[in-house]
Amino acid sequence: MRIEAIDFFYLSMPEVLDIGDGSQDALLVRVVAGDQIGWGECEAAPLPSIAGLIAPMSHSACKPVQASVLGQKLDSVADISRIGDLVRANSLDLLQADHILSGIDMAMWDLLGKRFDTPVYALLGYKEIFPKTPYASMLFGDTPQETLEKGRNARAMGYRAAKFGWGPIGLGSAQADADQFMAAREGLGEDGILLIDIGTVWKDDVAAASLRIPALQACRATWLEEPFVSGALDAYRQLAALTGNVKLAGGEGSHNYYMAQHMIDYAGLGYVQIDAGRIGGLSVSKAVADYAQAKGVTYVNHTFTSHLALSASLQPFAGIENDVICEYPVEPKSLALDITQNHIQRDANGQVHVPAAPGLGMAINFAALQPYLIDVEIRVQGKTLYKTPALA
Amino acid sequence: MRIEAIDFFYLSMPEVLDIGDGSQDALLVRVVAGDQIGWGECEAAPLPSIAGLIAPMSHSACKPVQASVLGQKLDSVADISRIGDLVRANSLDLLQADHILSGIDMAMWDLLGKRFDTPVYALLGYKEIFPKTPYASMLFGDTPQETLEKGRNARAMGYRAAKFGWGPIGLGSAQADADQFMAAREGLGEDGILLIDIGTVWKDDVAAASLRIPALQACRATWLEEPFVSGALDAYRQLAALTGNVKLAGGEGSHNYYMAQHMIDYAGLGYVQIDAGRIGGLSVSKAVADYAQAKGVTYVNHTFTSHLALSASLQPFAGIENDVICEYPVEPKSLALDITQNHIQRDANGQVHVPAAPGLGMAINFAALQPYLIDVEIRVQGKTLYKTPALA
Repeated sequence: MRIEAIDFFYLSMPEVLDIGDGSQDALLVRVVAGDQIGWGECEAAPLPSIAGLIAPMSHSACKPVQASVLGQKLDSVADISRIGDLVRANSLDLLQADHILSGIDMAMWDLLGKRFDTPVYALLGYKEIFPKTPYASMLFGDTPQETLEKGRNARAMGYRAAKFGWGPIGLGSAQADADQFMAAREGLGEDGILLIDIGTVWKDDVAAASLRIPALQACRATWLEEPFVSGALDAYRQLAALTGNVKLAGGEGSHNYYMAQHMIDYAGLGYVQIDAGRIGGLSVSKAVADYAQAKGVTYVNHTFTSHLALSASLQPFAGIENDVICEYPVEPKSLALDITQNHIQRDANGQVHVPAAPGLGMAINFAALQPYLIDVEIRVQGKTLYKTPALA
Repeated sequence: MRIEAIDFFYLSMPEVLDIGDGSQDALLVRVVAGDQIGWGECEAAPLPSIAGLIAPMSHSACKPVQASVLGQKLDSVADISRIGDLVRANSLDLLQADHILSGIDMAMWDLLGKRFDTPVYALLGYKEIFPKTPYASMLFGDTPQETLEKGRNARAMGYRAAKFGWGPIGLGSAQADADQFMAAREGLGEDGILLIDIGTVWKDDVAAASLRIPALQACRATWLEEPFVSGALDAYRQLAALTGNVKLAGGEGSHNYYMAQHMIDYAGLGYVQIDAGRIGGLSVSKAVADYAQAKGVTYVNHTFTSHLALSASLQPFAGIENDVICEYPVEPKSLALDITQNHIQRDANGQVHVPAAPGLGMAINFAALQPYLIDVEIRVQGKTLYKTPALA
């Protein structure tokens, strides 16, 4: 069968706040081939991604993404890989392309899984899958007291692990950060797995990061995430030599296989975090998971949005028994929850399981999404190249 | 003074062909502050870049690029650097952002240069500048005979150096490529500087590349450019150990400082090629030029389009005496030539000089550009977020 349609849907909360919460809008992707429909999600700025899907060609290596997908044969896993390679070659100079491809790749896996009545993890080659320990992914409070309460709340909700990130961290003094770290530890309890996310605030400033090491060790953080921007390999490696038991985590900014590989090879990471909605989809994520295993680095998903994205992000390492921790969005906006009818719930042990249903195993909640649908129209030389399609 | 306006102009040839010629469209940038106007050019897909300039915010680290530029103070070189940092932080998750920033950064330098009546290279800190030896940048012919004639033509036009790239190279047999390489050498003459550009066709396949080494050595290529995609560091380094006198060149795909740094540190390059229209503008290009000097790697501009882009791309290494070779577009489409009223011509010795005039030293040819101007309209929730402005 051939890919007949790719539709992008820009969804948004009525108000988008200037905070580090990536669940305030979404870019949902529908791929149609034969009598099958697959769904995916780009973790990407919606409007530039829509534009990159449908833009006029600039030259042979700067084509719109749909040029390499529409009309392509989609009968096997090898076809997904081939289409990904086509996009990367034909859209080499379209920077946004990897983010755009990500949701399309997920949707192709979902579609093939439904067609073959098989979960995606099985198509990826996993014979056996293992439960994951979710960490509650939350923003730091504006004050240590707020963070303390958030930590208590996470524990009360039964989370054994929690990550605190962004908010005021790194913007004030080292002491202010230390107070936040200790509040998080106190809230989460002595035996909780505490993860700290800096959100790249220190860019590549090893000295600024180093000032926080004693507090990170004192609060017994399992990892220090994104002290620096993705790609600041030297800064990462220098810091990794100084943090002792606190391992570095990073990689969510990777938008292709090579960038993740460089983080694994040269940044001294203990954990590589991959967002399947940015790196080019499930296909690339699985390749990174394989490489991480070979290099002794733990793979972790990066997911802050919907349970469609969560299912997609769990598939690439569902069969890796030792990579236990997974990110689990605990306070997403209503939009993120409303994307799917079903949700990936924690079991009695507080663990999560990748869906056993065909494809990604998630059902889109069309009715709930209507109020979030953003009407977009892009016209070039008087011709409409994109108009928001009906979501049904 | 403060930045009052940023305008993007999408320009295109009437017909865009499916060939590796990046001069078929352009994205011109105008920045206005006080009574000054600066011009720049993004080497980027126009429509997604326009969308990324004006898109609604997704979250605090995924803002449209204009959010970090409009209204900002622009009185000094430090302001340009500060604005660049703002864009990189506030648009961290907008993948297209570096390409969008590139043209804005150029325009800010042009504007400040005009305001201070100073060429940009002087603002960049160069006290003395040096002429460059331009290479004619051309596509391979469809046949060796065509390539031979192109080489003869370059020599007849007085070029001492020529680069042949893309076209059929790497798509057929090693022998077919060898015939093309030898035709290029024959056409250019025994004493010409011959440069070969593979256009990333081998992706990261060292074996495929290795098959071509004897022919590359036989034709005495000075460099082998982009055998692999940017970021395939291992493949580059492995190949670099095998090519002897033929040095590797690459880096044009870098869209931030770190990617160029990785190519210099880990890819075994002899030449690092930077497109100021992709990497974030002149500011980042200059930082890479400085780093390359420190690491003993030769800096070369990547320029395939207009003389506005050429002026911008020459500034970052104008004062580096030993980095002599520069890319010079020899067969651009009429659009690229029509962007400026004046052009950077070769002198009697066949060398080129960065303009001595204030700013980038180029005058926009408004009248000539009108037929190329593409009318774009982007509407979100019934509101027009972008409409092609008047170009005058």
